[in-house]
Amino acid sequence: MERSVRARWAWRPAHAPDVFTRVLRALGQVVFQANPWTGGILVVALGTADWRYAAYAVGGAALGAVTARGLGVPSDRREAGPESFNSALLALCLAVLLDPGRPATALLTAAGCLVVTVGTAAAVRLLSVWNLPPLTLPYCLVAVSVTVAAPAFRRVWPHDGSLAALPGAASGRSALHAGDVARAFLHNVSQILFLELWHVGALLLAAVFLAGRTAGLVACAGSLTGIATAWALGAPAERIADGTLGYNAVLVALALCGAFLPATPATLPYALLGAAASTALTPAVAALLAPSGGHVFTWPFVLTTLGFLAAARSFPRLTATEPGARAVRPGRASSVRQR
Amino acid sequence: MERSVRARWAWRPAHAPDVFTRVLRALGQVVFQANPWTGGILVVALGTADWRYAAYAVGGAALGAVTARGLGVPSDRREAGPESFNSALLALCLAVLLDPGRPATALLTAAGCLVVTVGTAAAVRLLSVWNLPPLTLPYCLVAVSVTVAAPAFRRVWPHDGSLAALPGAASGRSALHAGDVARAFLHNVSQILFLELWHVGALLLAAVFLAGRTAGLVACAGSLTGIATAWALGAPAERIADGTLGYNAVLVALALCGAFLPATPATLPYALLGAAASTALTPAVAALLAPSGGHVFTWPFVLTTLGFLAAARSFPRLTATEPGARAVRPGRASSVRQR
Amino acid sequence: MERSVRARWAWRPAHAPDVFTRVLRALGQVVFQANPWTGGILVVALGTADWRYAAYAVGGAALGAVTARGLGVPSDRREAGPESFNSALLALCLAVLLDPGRPATALLTAAGCLVVTVGTAAAVRLLSVWNLPPLTLPYCLVAVSVTVAAPAFRRVWPHDGSLAALPGAASGRSALHAGDVARAFLHNVSQILFLELWHVGALLLAAVFLAGRTAGLVACAGSLTGIATAWALGAPAERIADGTLGYNAVLVALALCGAFLPATPATLPYALLGAAASTALTPAVAALLAPSGGHVFTWPFVLTTLGFLAAARSFPRLTATEPGARAVRPGRASSVRQR
Repeated sequence: MERSVRARWAWRPAHAPDVFTRVLRALGQVVFQANPWTGGILVVALGTADWRYAAYAVGGAALGAVTARGLGVPSDRREAGPESFNSALLALCLAVLLDPGRPATALLTAAGCLVVTVGTAAAVRLLSVWNLPPLTLPYCLVAVSVTVAAPAFRRVWPHDGSLAALPGAASGRSALHAGDVARAFLHNVSQILFLELWHVGALLLAAVFLAGRTAGLVACAGSLTGIATAWALGAPAERIADGTLGYNAVLVALALCGAFLPATPATLPYALLGAAASTALTPAVAALLAPSGGHVFTWPFVLTTLGFLAAARSFPRLTATEPGARAVRPGRASSVRQR
Repeated sequence: MERSVRARWAWRPAHAPDVFTRVLRALGQVVFQANPWTGGILVVALGTADWRYAAYAVGGAALGAVTARGLGVPSDRREAGPESFNSALLALCLAVLLDPGRPATALLTAAGCLVVTVGTAAAVRLLSVWNLPPLTLPYCLVAVSVTVAAPAFRRVWPHDGSLAALPGAASGRSALHAGDVARAFLHNVSQILFLELWHVGALLLAAVFLAGRTAGLVACAGSLTGIATAWALGAPAERIADGTLGYNAVLVALALCGAFLPATPATLPYALLGAAASTALTPAVAALLAPSGGHVFTWPFVLTTLGFLAAARSFPRLTATEPGARAVRPGRASSVRQR
Repeated sequence: MERSVRARWAWRPAHAPDVFTRVLRALGQVVFQANPWTGGILVVALGTADWRYAAYAVGGAALGAVTARGLGVPSDRREAGPESFNSALLALCLAVLLDPGRPATALLTAAGCLVVTVGTAAAVRLLSVWNLPPLTLPYCLVAVSVTVAAPAFRRVWPHDGSLAALPGAASGRSALHAGDVARAFLHNVSQILFLELWHVGALLLAAVFLAGRTAGLVACAGSLTGIATAWALGAPAERIADGTLGYNAVLVALALCGAFLPATPATLPYALLGAAASTALTPAVAALLAPSGGHVFTWPFVLTTLGFLAAARSFPRLTATEPGARAVRPGRASSVRQR
């Protein structure tokens, strides 16, 4: 506050590590842990898949933070960093879905990060009426727009033809083997980063445990709930094992039990009901976007979590189960509590 | 208020009839009449089609009420019962669309009722900013999600293949005979319960008249407006006669003339304009959801009614046409006035 | 205020020119200029294409104003005229998309204007929570509903079969010639009126310049931004030249630099970022609506502008770059400043 706006813009090499810590903290918020070590392991995990994925994610987070600063977003809100992690996710998603090696992808990503920063400010303002956090809504909006529009643009689209197709019915084996469960358990975590790689999932899960044992256990419970729900509903084993049905469950569990609601015995079943609902919602979102060629991204997580957070206010048993329990504080990310 | 939370949970056989009355009252709210006799006739009407439909509707209403109580929803709001009638509609819809005899359908329905109760609390909170009622929005959201996702789950989907298809243009005879009009008139009411059975429509219409003569006449006017609008626009006679184009018109008329706006000479034409608009909107919603395999449910009613209620505040002629007329009270169901 | 409601309804031939001026001013607001001369040139431009287009636009604007007055919308808000220009756009759009010569189209248009007036009141109320203007949202909602529903109604639909189709990938030449740029520059303006006619674009651009030199230059900058963005992304030259990719960019630029944010050196790049974003969003909206047979209308403009206006509050550099600069006044159209 006491520093002038001009001074904030000046290049301060002495503070470079500070900036780096902020970016890593923002990346950690992808799994709701504003912990630089969590963000660091996430970058390493991405790097084991493709160093360019790591570069896109770090670049996106930095660009989001710089844009927010350039537009004059107040500093205290920027600390929470929704601009940063939404930008990081968008950059990573475009790197994975389009070809990360082309200059066109890099330029499009930079432009997308500018727009997602504006979108984050808009989402923060629109949702503030209900005291709800933006989550990854801005990223989802921009990512769906870009991927659905991409086939219309020749410089953007590296494939032949559009992906648009009518959704079909499930096919394939639905009996679940032990190996499927193990793969699903880790892929549910790695798919948060758009990757179907068990070691990325293991690293990211370790990064969550590093930030807090409770968060790690909640993430495990979310992943298992996603698997159990998908199996109970009769999803094909292949869809369960590749993690595409369960990554939203992990995010919902973390958001509703620890990040935006306190982690208590009362919120855990509520969070796992949300995790199960987001698993069932995932093929619905896929079917709604399939005819336009869109992807699911984290829409099921965003919709389920916003709904369950909005509802939580009406359920006094959730938010005040024990005398002295912390009140609900939607709108404040876990970062607030960890500092 | 004076009773402790614990006491409310205790099993009180002496109050069992009271619980039963509440469930019937909630079912009556499907047609905006919080009248246990209306709800009772609705159950009988469902039973004439299939006793399992009646069982699902009653079970859904009860489960919604119990879940809301278990989560600690304040009693005064629970009386209005949006949790109950949204749960009842979801249960009925899943019974009709999926096979009601399979245990999988029953389990899915129970889980869906939990989620729709959370969704109702969320909708109440989100719409309270504009002082708008949740109507059947929570049911519509969950029902669309479940039915669009269902083909991806083998244990849920009893059919082969998905229903997803591109919408086509109208075909078939568009001249309307007297028999078509008569069938349409009653099917417009019975389709509120997803059924194309004239005697169900007749029973349900009688149940509305039982709750109030004005409400009955408004329902008739809504049904006729739906028929006239569909005919004027040139809809195929078959689509008019089966009631799929007009059931939203009945609901909109009841909602805008009697339930959420007072029933006056000024609101009747407004309500019938809304009824006509919802009739024209019905094929639009069908076309938007068809490529994903979704159904219309009561989306046209929800969207039209919320829009017309939000607009009503800006139209002083509607809400205060006569000195001493009752003020608009969106957010308070007819139940409030009847007690 | 001092005149009674009854007196306002009385026919006052002495004020007929006043009514005519109001309608023209409302039409001018299609390009954010509440200037009767701008509206007059717009009518002439439409007339050069087809006199019935001009008649529909004028009739729609008048019907919207009359309906708003009949329902008792307070006069001060009616002056801004969102009912009028939304009605005018709906009437024009139905005239162009359906056959303007059939009585069915005229009747449908009249009914649509009633509904869009109600929709405008609803949008004003819903968006007032965030102090956002309704823009052309009511028109977009009704226009999409009508055009998507139209194939289901034989009296409405003049074509054979539905337009619903899965979106495809871009094809055709993507190198841009000088002639393409010139045509795109003017078609980007004329497509605001659904027409691909360079002289309509030239007339409308002249009408914007007439209302203010800054507005004219901003419109030019928006059109060029749309062309540059579409070219940079690799859109087919044919799609650029026909103006379908760039008309939203013109509208966004005008809205964000002059109409709802002050025209300053700080808001211009923000507005042009919005213009570029709306250009990229246009094929996304097209792909989302294509499987249902829908058109893009001005959805990209509405979504981009609402997002950028909502975000603008969080960016102090935009809204207060210079001491004494005018504060942001979303919700007040340019009309306010011009009177």
